[in-house]
Formats: sequence, structure tokens, C-alpha cells
Amino acid sequence: MNTYGDMFRVTVFGESHGKAVGAVVDGCPANLPLSEEDIQKELNRRKPGSSIFSTPRKEKDLVEILSGIFEGKTTGTPICAIVYNKNARPKDYSLIKDTPRPGHADLTYRLKYRNYDYRGGGRASGRVTIGHVIGGAIAKKLLSYTYNIKIIGYTIKIGKIEGDFNYYKNPDIFEDEKSLESLIEKIEGNPLRCPSMNEKEMEEYVLNAMKNKDSVGGVVEIIVVNVPAGVGNPVFNKLNGELARGLMSINAVKGVEIGRGFESAEMYGSEMNDEMYFDEDKNIRFRTNNCGGILGGISCGTPIVIRIAVKPTPSIGKKQRTINLKTLENTEIEIKGRHDPIIVPRIIPVAESVVAITLADLMIKGGFIHPCSL
Amino acid sequence: MNTYGDMFRVTVFGESHGKAVGAVVDGCPANLPLSEEDIQKELNRRKPGSSIFSTPRKEKDLVEILSGIFEGKTTGTPICAIVYNKNARPKDYSLIKDTPRPGHADLTYRLKYRNYDYRGGGRASGRVTIGHVIGGAIAKKLLSYTYNIKIIGYTIKIGKIEGDFNYYKNPDIFEDEKSLESLIEKIEGNPLRCPSMNEKEMEEYVLNAMKNKDSVGGVVEIIVVNVPAGVGNPVFNKLNGELARGLMSINAVKGVEIGRGFESAEMYGSEMNDEMYFDEDKNIRFRTNNCGGILGGISCGTPIVIRIAVKPTPSIGKKQRTINLKTLENTEIEIKGRHDPIIVPRIIPVAESVVAITLADLMIKGGFIHPCSL
Amino acid sequence: MNTYGDMFRVTVFGESHGKAVGAVVDGCPANLPLSEEDIQKELNRRKPGSSIFSTPRKEKDLVEILSGIFEGKTTGTPICAIVYNKNARPKDYSLIKDTPRPGHADLTYRLKYRNYDYRGGGRASGRVTIGHVIGGAIAKKLLSYTYNIKIIGYTIKIGKIEGDFNYYKNPDIFEDEKSLESLIEKIEGNPLRCPSMNEKEMEEYVLNAMKNKDSVGGVVEIIVVNVPAGVGNPVFNKLNGELARGLMSINAVKGVEIGRGFESAEMYGSEMNDEMYFDEDKNIRFRTNNCGGILGGISCGTPIVIRIAVKPTPSIGKKQRTINLKTLENTEIEIKGRHDPIIVPRIIPVAESVVAITLADLMIKGGFIHPCSL
Amino acid sequence: MNTYGDMFRVTVFGESHGKAVGAVVDGCPANLPLSEEDIQKELNRRKPGSSIFSTPRKEKDLVEILSGIFEGKTTGTPICAIVYNKNARPKDYSLIKDTPRPGHADLTYRLKYRNYDYRGGGRASGRVTIGHVIGGAIAKKLLSYTYNIKIIGYTIKIGKIEGDFNYYKNPDIFEDEKSLESLIEKIEGNPLRCPSMNEKEMEEYVLNAMKNKDSVGGVVEIIVVNVPAGVGNPVFNKLNGELARGLMSINAVKGVEIGRGFESAEMYGSEMNDEMYFDEDKNIRFRTNNCGGILGGISCGTPIVIRIAVKPTPSIGKKQRTINLKTLENTEIEIKGRHDPIIVPRIIPVAESVVAITLADLMIKGGFIHPCSL
Repeated sequence: MNTYGDMFRVTVFGESHGKAVGAVVDGCPANLPLSEEDIQKELNRRKPGSSIFSTPRKEKDLVEILSGIFEGKTTGTPICAIVYNKNARPKDYSLIKDTPRPGHADLTYRLKYRNYDYRGGGRASGRVTIGHVIGGAIAKKLLSYTYNIKIIGYTIKIGKIEGDFNYYKNPDIFEDEKSLESLIEKIEGNPLRCPSMNEKEMEEYVLNAMKNKDSVGGVVEIIVVNVPAGVGNPVFNKLNGELARGLMSINAVKGVEIGRGFESAEMYGSEMNDEMYFDEDKNIRFRTNNCGGILGGISCGTPIVIRIAVKPTPSIGKKQRTINLKTLENTEIEIKGRHDPIIVPRIIPVAESVVAITLADLMIKGGFIHPCSL
Repeated sequence: MNTYGDMFRVTVFGESHGKAVGAVVDGCPANLPLSEEDIQKELNRRKPGSSIFSTPRKEKDLVEILSGIFEGKTTGTPICAIVYNKNARPKDYSLIKDTPRPGHADLTYRLKYRNYDYRGGGRASGRVTIGHVIGGAIAKKLLSYTYNIKIIGYTIKIGKIEGDFNYYKNPDIFEDEKSLESLIEKIEGNPLRCPSMNEKEMEEYVLNAMKNKDSVGGVVEIIVVNVPAGVGNPVFNKLNGELARGLMSINAVKGVEIGRGFESAEMYGSEMNDEMYFDEDKNIRFRTNNCGGILGGISCGTPIVIRIAVKPTPSIGKKQRTINLKTLENTEIEIKGRHDPIIVPRIIPVAESVVAITLADLMIKGGFIHPCSL
Repeated sequence: MNTYGDMFRVTVFGESHGKAVGAVVDGCPANLPLSEEDIQKELNRRKPGSSIFSTPRKEKDLVEILSGIFEGKTTGTPICAIVYNKNARPKDYSLIKDTPRPGHADLTYRLKYRNYDYRGGGRASGRVTIGHVIGGAIAKKLLSYTYNIKIIGYTIKIGKIEGDFNYYKNPDIFEDEKSLESLIEKIEGNPLRCPSMNEKEMEEYVLNAMKNKDSVGGVVEIIVVNVPAGVGNPVFNKLNGELARGLMSINAVKGVEIGRGFESAEMYGSEMNDEMYFDEDKNIRFRTNNCGGILGGISCGTPIVIRIAVKPTPSIGKKQRTINLKTLENTEIEIKGRHDPIIVPRIIPVAESVVAITLADLMIKGGFIHPCSL
Repeated sequence: MNTYGDMFRVTVFGESHGKAVGAVVDGCPANLPLSEEDIQKELNRRKPGSSIFSTPRKEKDLVEILSGIFEGKTTGTPICAIVYNKNARPKDYSLIKDTPRPGHADLTYRLKYRNYDYRGGGRASGRVTIGHVIGGAIAKKLLSYTYNIKIIGYTIKIGKIEGDFNYYKNPDIFEDEKSLESLIEKIEGNPLRCPSMNEKEMEEYVLNAMKNKDSVGGVVEIIVVNVPAGVGNPVFNKLNGELARGLMSINAVKGVEIGRGFESAEMYGSEMNDEMYFDEDKNIRFRTNNCGGILGGISCGTPIVIRIAVKPTPSIGKKQRTINLKTLENTEIEIKGRHDPIIVPRIIPVAESVVAITLADLMIKGGFIHPCSL
């Protein structure tokens, strides 16, 4: 379905070339200061056309709040926010009407529903993540307002080029507010959202693929700081499980890791286990953070460490073999339209949004944030 | 919470050293032939004590069905099945009452609930996965009965030792019923549930760790065959998302991949995309299965390919630093009790169970299996 | 929360004097022919200003569909439909800012959320039922398209004036398509939606109350024909339970009856029990329909019979005692604004909508309607 | 399905003549003192055989808690509690195997599931409400422990005999702890749980029906005191809606009223509206309680007033016409077995339980009770 969350719940709607896309956010407690700017700021981060690495489709993605705010604050009632589609060009897509694109959801949608708005991928388009970002912007505001929680996503790998920056190489940066600020500046300042020294090498890599009418993937790391201990649930609905589900709900994500992830399979128990100690003020601390902030499905107070694998954009200009569902013949396709050669940098605000919604929901359910009124 | 699934829903309960553990399975359609043997068979696969690599705790794990069956078939009413704990030794655990074990949920449970049944990890014990397996056994029977779906899990890596068998090296085996049978025999025939030629090397690796009072992790691959195209949902509740959440609900799982997973981040679009064609009978086929059977969150008819990272068992005999919550002092712990030096082989039936429940639920919700009566 | 239904789910939003009200309908199967006219038709039935018995607020309530339709049919993706508020007069309500109206939700909203959009009752306004009707219009179309189900609501009592028409006096009318058509015509043809001979007497009764600046209540009966046997669930989520919950979700409803309702408490088992027989074609038939179409929470194939008690509109011109939350003093209020002296006739399309959504949801969940595609 | 509640959730299971009936209660916060006695006490109130007005089936209904309690307190993990069936006499029911009893769920279950455990009505038996009472006993303890909430149910009508005691005749009794105690004593002291002066007349009425091998119904009133203002939700999931759904989930309930209920339809707004005032301590008070403690779906702090219509027990000894599903012939049935001539007094602890679960769930969701730990 199209609703995410139980108590902080985001219902998304809209197609790539329909009238509008948007979301209804239900369960945001009353008395949170909220304006259209709070949402617009995040939408601008995922907006197309801001670099040579993104689709040239021109959309300002201006958001309009229809309900749920009174005198500058939330009221506890559902917040509906929409973005009208402006630069829809349905005709660009007549080509794919009967020839599903390899690696895309064109075929599975059609098989499942038999009435598929194929224009721009319809509901399978990345454009529907505007709804995720609307929900995420509100969730971020709520988390920041109540617990000063920060969610920071960035690229750590592009294609085969591994970046030299990641959490386990630089855990201390995330303990210090100032270092964090300058990290964020660095991330937002470059087109791949990658704070590594070798970021230019990555840009080269993408440009090269673009010349070949091809696309590339990458790996994104997301760190969350200031989550209190106790968020999440023991058996099903573990914090890690909910995060994984949410992140896999983003098209193109093919893997999710928490903490050391797949690397932990190679470690001995004595290496992996994070030892505890009391600091001078008798606060519980951990000597390492291999668990990535989650033990037994419940947050333990250290930064939450997540990595997602992003596959290369399936829409490429290169000739590919496919089928024609009308003629029932094998055929070939060269996708025209307007497409991203790499989706990694634009997926970051979406992934952060999903993490924010997941946390907001679990923190309300867990009694950390009052469900009705701040 | 302790319920998994919406329409095929499994509610699990019980603690490691309480009276009993079990599950209530609600939403299984009527008229499925089902007996205690169907469940016992799967419980035996996760039972402790069947090899030198598992805890010596002696439990026969005999299941008793309390409701929901009439004249050998399900009735559409909830099936409650329980396993009484026999070999509980609560006294073994007095040690950990105030000194949470590193890498364990002892601390987070205690912080969250403040009344923690610490005996054997209580509800955080691997023993609670008996409930998962009860639910999974019923789900497997349902999937097999209706669609001949098979779910096959096996070890592909132990610590740093990579096995020579995995799906992408041998996709054809999964297309042929006979090869599949002999693969399953091979898997179930060795203590690490690993069908690789170098399995002995892995055994050595674990034995070595055991000598050092240490533990090891590994990677498990799970393949599902015969899932029809169309299972799953487009945006949230994607098939991959639900699988990831379910699998992360198993303690020790730190990463989940679908299809090529993290490898896909290194591929070009032209490599990753699975091209389609019509075979002679005009069936839609794919030339490759890099997507792992799922496109846009919906199954496409090819085998579903999943990998999970399993961290080393946190309970180790080696001395570790921790805290004493009563004295508020830093201290050390050497865990005695009865523990698995590696959880990988025993996690396999649990992971298969979670996959089965996830699929049963989505196939009922998607109209593939009638929700009330077969 | 603001979502109703599990698989056919309606999320409503909007305030009385905000920008817009509307709904997102998720889970409507693909391939249902649907246009704005289908929804507009039902909105016109609840629109204000169509008789002297309703508020003079001028709203055309024109609906706009933003998503989910392609080539005149649903696609299985969420349908967002909105109605912009045109005749908002927020200033009319400054009076009630601090003086909650007796019988209204003003006080409880304020206590719960502490930021209350009091203008026209904000989210507690009857205007939010536009969302219910949007969802209901789509559900009705679905039920009619798949099973020729008809939902007919009408007034059977106004204040102390009992009408001479109700189901148990005229069960045969509901067995015959033609009689039903002319009944509907009669209902829609008069301002109180009452098909009784003594309807004029009721009008007098209301006019009299209006002269006294007072308001009146009434009883509505809703009949559903052509529901197949088997809809609903045995224990929780019984068909009757779900209907009762849905109908109680409409402000002003203070009681719900199924079949003989409270009258059944006075009957002997031998009177109440509906005896079964086989008709000539060996169809199962019932000699009576005292159960109102539901046995053990599951539909039995006879018409579903529901009655709801509607309290008098709380907004009245008469002077009433209340409190001032700012000055903390006892005070009095004479409500000006634009209000309905009776809500009964306008509640009918809303109640029908709730019944329709409830049935659509249960019929999809029960396997009667395919969840993805018709 | 068989689960009730979202955050305080009760999953019930078991058949009348199966091995056991019971419930899993998930979401009860940790640190609530709880023992088997707390549950047994409530089960004894619904137990059969305690008066001439109930079935002579002999069941001690001894409860056993299998999980979720540690050192006398809840731990936040699921509490499974079961009652083994002892006096099952499956053979008594061979008669009804093919001839569904009028007024019963025999037919609808069979049509829906096609494998029906008909023995004693199987899952449609009143015996399954043992699960409701287990959940209710825990919910009551939680509500009493945290808010001193009391839930008092009693009979106000038997057949056509109206009792002289009800809430609106004696609202003051519910304001005073001592009067309440003696009222409860009176209720529990007589076989019909009716505190009216004319209770003996009601007993006569039932005895008379029993002589005629017939059964009777009645009306039960349930009052809840000490619920704080603010419980419930504005649109869907209103407190009244949730209560109505829960109560309708009990077999035999055919109507639900809140506050003045159907009587409110006859009142003018000026009569119905409950005027507010500040008392000397500036507490908000209401001059009347016609709304029954709920305004706009949210509790307002006054006693919650509920009435349910209970139909006559469908199982009667009198000859009735029915059908034979095997021979497809019309036939007659005289039900033997062991049945209640009236279910009203035994339904009271069940109805109270449902009210308790509903409130516990809404109060956790609304932030009134901490979801994890008291």
C-alpha cells in the first residue's frame, strides 16, 4: 500500500505525469512549528536539474500545504501537502507503452494491475518520492525539535570507486557539533554529495558512463545522531528491521546494512562485541560502535549507522533487448526521455526522509514523543 | 510488537527459561492439511544439540497444537502451537543479572522495560525463534500446497572463508527439481548447512575459534523458487522491503541483500538490467536474474535471491569488559552457560520461516491465495 | 487517526475553514471505470444549502481528482481527490475562540491538542465528511460494478415523530429492483429524505424547533442489498462491529442497531431466530430477517439492516451556559454563524459512504473482490 | 481476524471442544503487578454453571500463564494465558453436523470456511470469550493501577421487563466510591446481575421461558468512571466507535448506545447539550451527562455510559425449522446439548473486558499510559 508508519503515518500519492504528487502526514503531534519553507528546503535537495548528473526535466517542485496547520503550528490533524506537476511531457513515453524497459517496474506493474500509467513510469517513477520527502521533512523537524536528532546521508562509493570517507574511518566527527556542520557543508557542496577526497575521480567515472549512454550505481551511508537509548522493539518491528524495510521501499535500493553489516560476518565475537563502560559521570558508554547503534532491535544511544546499495539507474540510452507485449515479439529499445545517469546523490534526501519517518513513528510508539501534543 | 504479518499473521510468545514458547498463527486459510509432524519437522531443524557447533542445552522441542485444526485440516481459525521448556536452568544466569553481556540485548531491554527476565536472555534469547519456525512451518506448507513454492537456505560464507557455491555461480540448479533435491540433501547433511566443496575448511575455522573461547559469523543465501509474478506492492510494503524487515527481525542479522545486492552498486546499468524475451511458448523470460526476482517491489517470476549477514554469536567465554548496573562500576565478564559458537546453521530454518511467512502474507493480500478457504 | 479501512483505505484531511478538504483512497483495484462525476454526484447529495433545513453556507463542493486514474479507469494506485473551500468565513467564529459550545467537540479537541483551529469547528466540523463521501462514492462504484450492491439510507424518525415506513414494515420492497428504484426517487425527492406518508408532519416539527432557535435529531435506517453470504469475520472485525465503528465515526451518531437491534432484547429465541429453508432451486433462504443480514459477524445473504440514532445538532441560537477558557469564568453563548437545524438528511450520504467503505474493505479482505485488478 | 487492539493487543484462540482456549496479550507495559489470580477472578465471573440460568457444562476454567511475567510483574513481553477444556462432549453435537441451528453462526461459518468444527459451535461458541476475559482482566488491572478506572456492568432489562435502576436515574451513585462498592456487591449478589428492585420479576420471566424450552434477551448498561478527558481520536477511531466495534464483537449483541443513545434522537439540542461550568476550584464540570462521557469521539471526563442490546440465546429446545446441508432437504431441529436460557448475566464480564481492552489500547496510544514501562 501507500502508507508508511503506524502512529506517524505518511500516505503518498501521485504519478510522474499526472496532475500532482503529494502526501498526507497523519499523527504529527500538535504544536510543532511548521511552514511550507520547512518542506520546500528538503524538496529542493531532491529536485531534478541541479547538476549535470541529474535529469534535465524542469520542475520547481513548489509545495502547497492544504491542511493541518493553524497559526504556524501543527494541530494534530492530518497535514496534506501537494506539488503540482508542471513539466509533464507524456508524449515522450509513447515508445515504452508496449515495450517494458529492462531493469524497470514497467513489466511487473503491468502484469499486476493491467492498467498501467506508463508515462514516465507513472507511479513507479522516482518522482513519487516527493511524497517521501514531504513526510520526511516534517519528521525531521519533529525529531530535531524534540531531541536535536540529525540525519546525515552521503555517498561513500560510486561504481567501483570507493571513497576515503566513511563512519568507521571517522567516528569522532559525529560526536562534535561543529565538525558535523562542516561535514554537512562539504556534502551539500558537491554534485555527488560525497565528502571524500577522491570525489573528482567519481565524477570522472560518471561522465565516462554518460558518454557510453550508460548509468552507474553507488553506496550511501546514513548516520543518525542523538537518538536516545530504547527506541525500537525487541522481536518483530525491530529498529533495524523497520529501517531496512523503509529504505528498501525506495526504488533502486538492493541492500541494507546496519553497523558493520556484511563485514560483521567476517569478525570474531571478541572483535564485534562493543564493550561498555561507565564514564566519569556514570553515563553508560561503548568503546566501539560496531553494532551501529542498535542492539536486539533497540537503540543503545550511539550513532545509528546505515548503508544502502543503490543500483545503476535502469533507464539508459544504450540499445537493450526487450519484448513487445502487443505484438508478442522480441525487440530492442533505446530509451530517449530525460533520465538521471546516476540516482545516488538525489536518493540521499529520500533515504534520510525514510529514516526520519521511521524514527518519528517508533519514538511516538515508544513513548519518547507525546502522540498528541508537544 | 510480537506479531508479524497482516493477513497471515504470526504472534509469538515465551521466554528462554519460562514455562513455554509458542505462536498463534491467524489467517491461515481453511482446508490446508496440517499436523503436528509438519511443524515438528521444521523445529527439529533448528533444535539445539544436533552438532558440536550448537549449544549443548537439551531440548526435544516437542510441539503441541492447541486449536485451529479439525479432521486433519485447518479451519480458518487461529492455530495455537506451543513447546514447553524442559531443560531450563535459570540459575546459570545469575551472573548476568547485573552485568549486561557485550553485543547482547541485555542492556537495551533493561533500559527500555526495567523488569528484564535475564535468565538465558529471556525474550531476547534465540529460543524465541521457535515461534518464528512454528509460523514458518505452516506458511511453508501453505506455499508448497498452493504453488509448489520451495525455500532453500544455506551457508555461503563462514568468517573469512568464502564458499565456492552460491546462486550466481549455479543458477541452473534452481531450475531443475532433481538437482534441487540433491542440493537440499547436501545442505542438510552437513553441520554447517553449507553445500560448498570447501565446507571442511569452514569447520576447521569454527573449531579454532571455539578453542579460543570465541565465536564466528557468516553469510546465508536463501533462494525461493516458483513464486508467481506479481507478488508484492509498488511503493511501501515492497516484497524486498518486507523480506528485509522480516529477516532483520532475527537477532544477529546485520545486513540484507536482494539479487546482486551491494555488488550492483559496482555495475553499469547495461550490466545490471535483466533483458526480457519471449520463449518459444511466448512465456516472458529473463536472460539474467541480477534483480533477484523482484522489480519495483513486485516479483517477476524468476527465483528470489536473498543474502543475510549473520554476526558472530555475542555470548563468548573470552573475558570481556562490561559494567555492573548495581554497583555502577566497570567490571569484566566471562560467560559460562551453554552457547552456540556459531549461529549460522541454526539460523537457516528461522530465516526460511520468516521468508515463508512474508510470502504467505503478501500472496494472500495480493489475491494469489484465497484468504478464507482453499 | 484519519484513515479508515485496511485494504480499501480512505485517508481524509482538511478543516472547515482551511484551504481544502479531501481524501486519498488507496487499495481500490485497477480497472474500475471512474470519473469526477461519480464522486460529484454523491457530494451534491451532502452539499449544504439545498433546502431550508440546511446551513446557508454556499459551497459548490467541486471535486478535483489529482491521481490514480488513467484512461478513465483506476490503476490500483492511490486516488487523491480534493475540494477547495470557497465560502470560508473565519471571522464568524471569533466568538467561540475561548467559549466552547455545549454538545460540541470544541472543548475536548482543545484539551487534547492545545492548538485548535476553532474556525467553524475546524476538523470537528461536519465539513470533514466530504472526505468520507469521496471514499464512499468510489466504494459504491466498486460494489455496484462487481456485485450490483445497493446502499439505501432514509429517515425513519424526526424528533418524536416516528415515520410509517421502515424495513420491517416493508421488507418486500427491497427484494424488487423496480420498487427499490421508486423508493429511492421518493427519498431523494423530499428535504428530509423520508419516504413516510407523515413526512410533512416531520417538516412542521423541524420548522417549529427552528422558530425556537433550537435543533432536532432523528433516526436513519440504511439497507444494503445484494451482499453475498460470507462477508465479515468471526470474532473481532465482525461485519456488524466494523459497521458500528464506522457509523459511530460520524459526529452526532449516538447509537447503532443491526437487524431488530434493541427490540431483539424483548424477543424470545423462538421469535428472534430466523428459520432457514431451501427454495425450489435449492437456494438457502430465510423465513425472516430479524438478524439483519448478519449471523456470527458474517453476512448470510439477506439484506443488511442498520439503524443509527442522530442527536440534535449541537449548534443552536438559543442562549446556553458555558465557560470562558481565558478568563476562567462561567458565561453564556448564543451561537450565530451558519448552522443546520437538523443534520439527519445530510448525514444520510455520509452514513451510506461509511457503509460502502466498510463493505468494500471487508469484501476485498474476504476474497470477494480481487485486491489488485478487476 | 482474532486480534483486538493496536498497542494493547489481545489475540484469542481456541474452540469449544478443542484442547484449550486462551489469549496472547501483547503490549502490556512492564512493571504491572500481575498474577494468575487476577485473571482467575474474572474468569470465575463468566464461568458456566454458577446459577440455574446458565449452561450446566462443568468447567473450572483454571487459567495458566505461560509467559510474560517475571518476579510477579509484567515485563513488556507477550503474556500467553490458557485454559484447558475439561468437560468437552463432542458427541452431543453430531446432530448439528449437517443441520445448522437457526439464529446461530453454524451456517455462515460453514459457507465461509467449508471446514467447520461444529462441536459446540467450535469457534463460534461463547466459550471463546474466555480469551476476551483474559485480555480484559489484564486491561482492568492496568487501568485500575494507573488511573483507578472502574468498569461496572449490570442488567437493566430482561425480555420485556424494564428494571428500575439505570445510570440516568441514579447518576450520583457513580460519583461516590462507597455507593459504588455497595452497588457492585448488589450486582454480583444476584443471578441476573441486576441491581433493580424488580429483579425477582425478571427471574420469573426467565424461568417461564425455560419451561417453554425458549430463551430470552436483555439490555446491559456499562459505566466507566475515572477516565481522564482526552481519550479517543477525532475522526475515525473515535472512543465511541471503538467501543461499539468491540462490543459488537461479542456474539448476541445487536445494538450499542452511548449516553442517551436512541433517546437523543427525540431530544431538542437545548435538552441534549451538556452545559459546562467551572466549579469552585476552577475544574471544568458538566451540568448533565447526556453525551455519556464522550464529545467528538474524545472523552470529556464524565462517566462513560454504554448500553448494549443482547438478543435471546439462539440455542433453544423448542422445535425449529431448518435445512439439512447433506440431503438438501428442509427439516426440523430440537437442540439438546447444554445451553444458557439467557446469556445476559454471563455476557457482563465479557462486555466489561472488551471495554477495558479498548480503553487500555486508546490510553496507551493517546499518551496517557507509557507504552513500555510503568
